Amino acid sequence: MNEFDFIEKIRARVRAKQDSASALSTQHSALVQGIGDDAAVVRSQTGKDSIVTTDLLIEEVDFKRDTTTPELLGHKALAVSLSDIAAMGARARWGLVSIGLPPDVWETGFAERLYDGYFTLAEQYGVELAGGDVSRTTDKILLDSILIGECDSGRAVLRRGATPGDQIFVTGFLGDAAAGLRLIERGARVHTAVGPRRVEEHSAERLLLRQLRPDPRVGWGILLGEQQLASAMIDISDGLSSDLNHLCKKSNVGAVIDAARIPIDKLVTEICGRRALDPLMLALHGGEDFELLFTVKPENVPRLPRKVDGVSICQIGEITGGTGKVRVAEKDRVWDLKPEGFDHFKL
Amino acid sequence: MNEFDFIEKIRARVRAKQDSASALSTQHSALVQGIGDDAAVVRSQTGKDSIVTTDLLIEEVDFKRDTTTPELLGHKALAVSLSDIAAMGARARWGLVSIGLPPDVWETGFAERLYDGYFTLAEQYGVELAGGDVSRTTDKILLDSILIGECDSGRAVLRRGATPGDQIFVTGFLGDAAAGLRLIERGARVHTAVGPRRVEEHSAERLLLRQLRPDPRVGWGILLGEQQLASAMIDISDGLSSDLNHLCKKSNVGAVIDAARIPIDKLVTEICGRRALDPLMLALHGGEDFELLFTVKPENVPRLPRKVDGVSICQIGEITGGTGKVRVAEKDRVWDLKPEGFDHFKL
Repeated sequence: MNEFDFIEKIRARVRAKQDSASALSTQHSALVQGIGDDAAVVRSQTGKDSIVTTDLLIEEVDFKRDTTTPELLGHKALAVSLSDIAAMGARARWGLVSIGLPPDVWETGFAERLYDGYFTLAEQYGVELAGGDVSRTTDKILLDSILIGECDSGRAVLRRGATPGDQIFVTGFLGDAAAGLRLIERGARVHTAVGPRRVEEHSAERLLLRQLRPDPRVGWGILLGEQQLASAMIDISDGLSSDLNHLCKKSNVGAVIDAARIPIDKLVTEICGRRALDPLMLALHGGEDFELLFTVKPENVPRLPRKVDGVSICQIGEITGGTGKVRVAEKDRVWDLKPEGFDHFKL
Repeated sequence: MNEFDFIEKIRARVRAKQDSASALSTQHSALVQGIGDDAAVVRSQTGKDSIVTTDLLIEEVDFKRDTTTPELLGHKALAVSLSDIAAMGARARWGLVSIGLPPDVWETGFAERLYDGYFTLAEQYGVELAGGDVSRTTDKILLDSILIGECDSGRAVLRRGATPGDQIFVTGFLGDAAAGLRLIERGARVHTAVGPRRVEEHSAERLLLRQLRPDPRVGWGILLGEQQLASAMIDISDGLSSDLNHLCKKSNVGAVIDAARIPIDKLVTEICGRRALDPLMLALHGGEDFELLFTVKPENVPRLPRKVDGVSICQIGEITGGTGKVRVAEKDRVWDLKPEGFDHFKL
């Protein structure tokens, strides 16, 4: 299959989805022109702002070919962008994917399997593939995921809205993806999950998948944005220490975190115990959990639901004065938290 | 300088530009949140459609490190996207750049020089840098340029609007970039332009720059779209034969081209003569000229200006029936034109 045939195939898949979705659609925003022209044309509803994010995934830096699958990679490319849109309190609408593949990888059908993973997640959250670019590379695989979302004008939840007294929350659990990465580095693989030690392996696989197939907190993001519950928000891609530091700096505030309240999965604690690792360090500095970190004014806290899409939240601390000064209260001591998460970053 | 410092520096440059531009701005569309959050927030005017394009530039595939400069590369990344937005008859507004650099290249200040080239062109056409992503790579440089434009709702000029009888036009000259590429492959470099054979070298440099620093036909694109003069349009990135084929297939039409009317620069003819190359083949199949190829209904032809921004147009043929059938009339024979341009492609 040559590249033009491939594009036509992808386009046909997008069309089939559009046809089946159009009967159900009640939204006025529309993809006027998708794949197959010089650019995509999208029409937003009046009174909406557009939210645009782009995320690179580069082989040997963000993933390794032999520890993931094309489907997982397609999923992750969209998931990291969905997480960004969620962190703005917005609803994802249209995606574009730029993909670079070496010729030998192209021959294996890698691209089609990658789009399988992308489409499965896109369908779950109502994202339409609107375009992209496909290129040859000399030897490495690369992906750039571009995602466009929408929210009511002026309602995007920025990093800069937190004020002293706001309560700090996170969704889900922290440190899972970092624990999963360590297991992968020690040789664990997703497809080795079934075997004699089925239950334990299966549990470990859950952590591997937190690293390889993150679940963006889409439902929480939309709820916090549309109901104006969050005063500031960021997704945890670099690690709590770095991302809380970003949020505090942008908001000109500080924060104090209660170590005992940080949600750590029992399995992470157990695995760390066996390997003499400190689970708190993974939760504070481990990246790629793609949980949401957000602040809520005290009067709004009672309005927070307990769970959205089965995902709960934890109140882990409070916003204070002192720009960028983040402290951790652990038992009877309080210490300064330096941003020591992964140092990749976004413009 | 670490990566966070770099982002702050880029952000400060964007801010300085915004401050100086805000007094002059009469447009209601706005960049609500630029660099420095999880995503960019843009607000379009009511009654506008958004046009989105993405273009990868990959080292050793789209450029070589030793035959260009970081500034030229930054210019080209934006130029190819500007050309896509122009080909939709739209006005470019907001850009995002994803950039991947190996650590040793990062150290050289390459990224800053690349943004110099990007910003110079962005300023010329009123494009604001709204965000992006920056990543490490193992060894190759890569860029993904994302550009968002606007046009009045329903006014985007697509590839599919041509009908039999429409006149076919191209801006500027064809084959220049391909000729420039051949000179580069034979060792010509932009910085070797000054020397004893000054005039000739200087002329050759003009062709090198057509390859390394393309000028997108922004003014023509906006005029053809806003005055509803073009029935269909595409930019010539792969080569006339391939791009005319795309346009004809999307429009379910054919075309006949008059070989004698194809605009070929005298210098291209001269260089081809010295090297036993056929300049017509360069003009038909050479890619990356980033000229606009568009069709105009006969009744609208008199409304076309002769030049926009100093760039003229040529009528090179006519749309016919017969889906995808493109022929060339050359002296007393007529032959079928197969799409033989560069085979990189866009979703």
